[in-house]
Amino acid sequence: MTGWLRIAGLGPGAEGMVTPEVTAALADATDVVGYIPYVARIAPRAGLTLHPSDNRVEAERARHALDMAAAGRRVVVVSSGDPGVFAMASAVFEVAETEPAFHTLDIAVLPGITAMLAAAAAAGAPLGHDFCAINLSDNLKPWSLIERRLRAGVEGDFAMAFYNPRSKARPEGFARVLDLLRDLCGSDRLITFARAVSTPDQSLRTVTLAEATPQMADMRTVVLLGNRATRRAGRWVYTPRGVS
Amino acid sequence: MTGWLRIAGLGPGAEGMVTPEVTAALADATDVVGYIPYVARIAPRAGLTLHPSDNRVEAERARHALDMAAAGRRVVVVSSGDPGVFAMASAVFEVAETEPAFHTLDIAVLPGITAMLAAAAAAGAPLGHDFCAINLSDNLKPWSLIERRLRAGVEGDFAMAFYNPRSKARPEGFARVLDLLRDLCGSDRLITFARAVSTPDQSLRTVTLAEATPQMADMRTVVLLGNRATRRAGRWVYTPRGVS
Repeated sequence: MTGWLRIAGLGPGAEGMVTPEVTAALADATDVVGYIPYVARIAPRAGLTLHPSDNRVEAERARHALDMAAAGRRVVVVSSGDPGVFAMASAVFEVAETEPAFHTLDIAVLPGITAMLAAAAAAGAPLGHDFCAINLSDNLKPWSLIERRLRAGVEGDFAMAFYNPRSKARPEGFARVLDLLRDLCGSDRLITFARAVSTPDQSLRTVTLAEATPQMADMRTVVLLGNRATRRAGRWVYTPRGVS
Repeated sequence: MTGWLRIAGLGPGAEGMVTPEVTAALADATDVVGYIPYVARIAPRAGLTLHPSDNRVEAERARHALDMAAAGRRVVVVSSGDPGVFAMASAVFEVAETEPAFHTLDIAVLPGITAMLAAAAAAGAPLGHDFCAINLSDNLKPWSLIERRLRAGVEGDFAMAFYNPRSKARPEGFARVLDLLRDLCGSDRLITFARAVSTPDQSLRTVTLAEATPQMADMRTVVLLGNRATRRAGRWVYTPRGVS
């Protein structure tokens, strides 16, 4: 049996947003590896072994998946959203780089609907012009770099999407982000809090920066900040395509 | 009959990347509206009218779709990739805003796999850390803003994805972009040219900025620029998740 590894995105939650190529890879797999809540989305079946693992063990999870594929298993590493956006694809390549034996493995990344684009779709089109995606977690980078990127994003008048805005381990970071953005963008700028998009728990709220509070975000929220031109149209929020 | 409007993303080209919710909307539609090559991807069937239109008539196309939905038709506006990323969603809301009658319409945006994420998946994980998406077309914005955003992207050490890098109408713009990036990032920075990703015409090429030429991009290419840490791992290119 020839092993392979697929690094697949399950999208934000709705089954209707899982691509057919991801569904096909899962149907063909012998093993599924991933963070507990993502593996929980995969239906058990005969011949498929599920390997759920805890958060913050990305490198160990990647090595386990690579080892199994090298041993001839058909392995899918699952991420929520898109595997290339703040998810498992980079972790797998970081580990694969360390061992030449892994360089010849049959590896493919299968893209998915990432949270910011599902959130933007639910809100209207707030990322309809040039935009940035920033992970606000400071687990893997210093706060100074997050602040530098926020400043650069504002300097470029980008719309911005923020992943991992707030967690129990970092309750105060997002308050600092909102304070900085109010300083840089003014209080009228629109900001959208999109929680659990495409699931039964979905909630969407668009306010101005003056009205925004840290408590509007939690671990299941992606936050979208408009650029200078972002506006409301009825119940929608959108960023115009043109800039004069 | 109650009309509705869906603004749907067809993904980058492969049928395996079209989400089930988009497929279902198309199966239920009476009318499909969009740019000629995207409408050409929809199979004709009884009861479905296809409305292909030329490039650069986004506002007229949006109004036509809104008018039909208001008249009770079930209309899908199709874009390549994701409709919220340099595509039709903003154009529809720009037009919808102008008429209160459109504010009560049943409108939804159905996200798709956008070109930069399909390209990143094919290359490895070059967008695996914070990144920007910039449309290099100057049809709808001045060159000075493009340059300001490129400078801001480099200042923030973002990985970057460039849409519409080059067209017949703007043969010299992308050469200026490459010159500016060489000045700002140095000649060793990795850059990936991804053409027609997920189609039979797919080609992928990763070079350094020193080696990059404008001719490596055309209208079907999305370009991915690494950040300072982006590196090769065997045949893959990836950006590590962590920054020390």
